[in-house]
Amino acid sequence: MRVIFNEEMKAVADDLDRMAQDVSKAIKGAGAALLNSDVEAAQTVIDGDIEIDALESSVIDQCVKLLAKQNPVATDLRVVVSTIRLAATFERMGDLAKHVAETARRTYPQSALTDEARPVVEQMVAFLDTTADRLPAMLSDRDTKIAQQVILDDDKLDELHHQTFDIMLSDNYDGDKQHLIDLVLFGRFLERLGDHAVSAARRVVYIVSGFDPSKKPGPDEGTNID
Amino acid sequence: MRVIFNEEMKAVADDLDRMAQDVSKAIKGAGAALLNSDVEAAQTVIDGDIEIDALESSVIDQCVKLLAKQNPVATDLRVVVSTIRLAATFERMGDLAKHVAETARRTYPQSALTDEARPVVEQMVAFLDTTADRLPAMLSDRDTKIAQQVILDDDKLDELHHQTFDIMLSDNYDGDKQHLIDLVLFGRFLERLGDHAVSAARRVVYIVSGFDPSKKPGPDEGTNID
Repeated sequence: MRVIFNEEMKAVADDLDRMAQDVSKAIKGAGAALLNSDVEAAQTVIDGDIEIDALESSVIDQCVKLLAKQNPVATDLRVVVSTIRLAATFERMGDLAKHVAETARRTYPQSALTDEARPVVEQMVAFLDTTADRLPAMLSDRDTKIAQQVILDDDKLDELHHQTFDIMLSDNYDGDKQHLIDLVLFGRFLERLGDHAVSAARRVVYIVSGFDPSKKPGPDEGTNID
Repeated sequence: MRVIFNEEMKAVADDLDRMAQDVSKAIKGAGAALLNSDVEAAQTVIDGDIEIDALESSVIDQCVKLLAKQNPVATDLRVVVSTIRLAATFERMGDLAKHVAETARRTYPQSALTDEARPVVEQMVAFLDTTADRLPAMLSDRDTKIAQQVILDDDKLDELHHQTFDIMLSDNYDGDKQHLIDLVLFGRFLERLGDHAVSAARRVVYIVSGFDPSKKPGPDEGTNID
């Protein structure tokens, strides 16, 4: 049983790693699409979301079969249940990256960003590019140091998100209503990507240590502007 | 084993029913807070979210213990895994209701709504009040007819959400930038509440029938405006 469990769990872990890699690419692609009005990058992110959704279904199906056939307990059970929840988190991150890409595609060839908004959004995108690199690394190596860094750093993204509102509300703001609406929306999407990354990081810590670093579920931490 | 499973599953189901009732109250309270600038209703929703979060933790802990000790298979396993995912959905709905309530509290004693935005938001809130009534009913009775209705009706909420953008972008729009930002945000929160209700309804259908009415996960259906 033990050997079979390990083999089957390895197959699920490979799919979950692939999800993390796909999500990582989607985040970077969405950021590039937004900053550079790159409609091809946007389309790649939008089209790629189907694979992320399919991987989620596959991961969950495999986990349910594992639970039925292998009756894992203790750490093994913790891994399987956390894997189900991680797959849901990654699926949601793929959706959010797609939403950002859709905004970039909709405004093309114009940029969705005004000159005033651009610097802070560049910083949010740069922050999330770092997060995107960390996701597959923390997962495949079960690296709690990287996971802790993702959790600790999220305040910076929240602070940048707050700044988007300061910019919009300032008298000098140079955008029209559509720019304002778009900035509220993709500001929110980028901030939520960070929240979900924190949630994923917490699950990695939980898998490794059995300790849940928060009694509060991850995705809603941070900013309370909304 | 069978008797113990049923007893323990009943305890989890009771907690999940309570989550559905709490979420139902939160949705109604948030809508009332928003429409009537009712700061007490807002505070009740905000304070009540702690119980919803605690119930989620409790439900998931119980499910993990059930998986370890009872090794459920077939329908029983489907129920346990769906329960874990429903708890996560309800937790998220509680957060969204809290976000709406926080907006209402922040703008108090002013309303977050301009005269032009009010009618469509009233319709969104009325729609979600109906959804709020359906959630506990579909869950406790495992009523797939109600669940199907929740799934089918969601287009109406998406249509109302689209209208909020038409209103904001019209030349006659009477709000300032803060009103615009708030309307984008709580429009999004209300629409997401509907999406998560669809997701919950799909899981109820899946529990009862074993058939997942969508290969696409629920929370991201509907509008593509974002």
